[in-house]
Amino acid sequence: MADLLDEEEIEQRLDELGDWERESNEISKVFEFDDFTQAIKFVNDVAKLADSKEHHPDIDIRDHKVKLTLSTHSEGGLTHWDFDFAGEVEQSIAD
Amino acid sequence: MADLLDEEEIEQRLDELGDWERESNEISKVFEFDDFTQAIKFVNDVAKLADSKEHHPDIDIRDHKVKLTLSTHSEGGLTHWDFDFAGEVEQSIAD
Repeated sequence: MADLLDEEEIEQRLDELGDWERESNEISKVFEFDDFTQAIKFVNDVAKLADSKEHHPDIDIRDHKVKLTLSTHSEGGLTHWDFDFAGEVEQSIAD
Repeated sequence: MADLLDEEEIEQRLDELGDWERESNEISKVFEFDDFTQAIKFVNDVAKLADSKEHHPDIDIRDHKVKLTLSTHSEGGLTHWDFDFAGEVEQSIAD
């Protein structure tokens, strides 16, 4: 269980994240890689994180681009799980 | 290079494939697995096939479901590459 975030919290956490887009009940970002192989490697890293967090983003692969979309379906909106997950993805990219 | 298939050829190859859906210039199918881990394993198998064939389907992961969408973008429509790829995916599932 996680509480839905209110508008103020959502705005604050979006600011912290950087260039993620918000559309109503979800946040998303397109990650671009040099090639398909790198894109699939990223997907596998995200999948490992998803398993460890038991939180599964929608993953759309378009050749060398990967779009992640996060929402907490069980709660019907955005919770700290979504922003924590997005933050960890950003951290893994930065490493 | 591959020639675009005409309507008759498309219908025939769709029939051979089985339960793939066609929407104008693309064919797609949703594959459902027991869990996210199996879904990601399938994605990696598809990725290997994509690399070997140099033909990259759109891949949409929704928890334990994976949707593949095929089209030959360079030709602006459906070619034998799309149906050959779909056939190989079906074969890999059946093995």
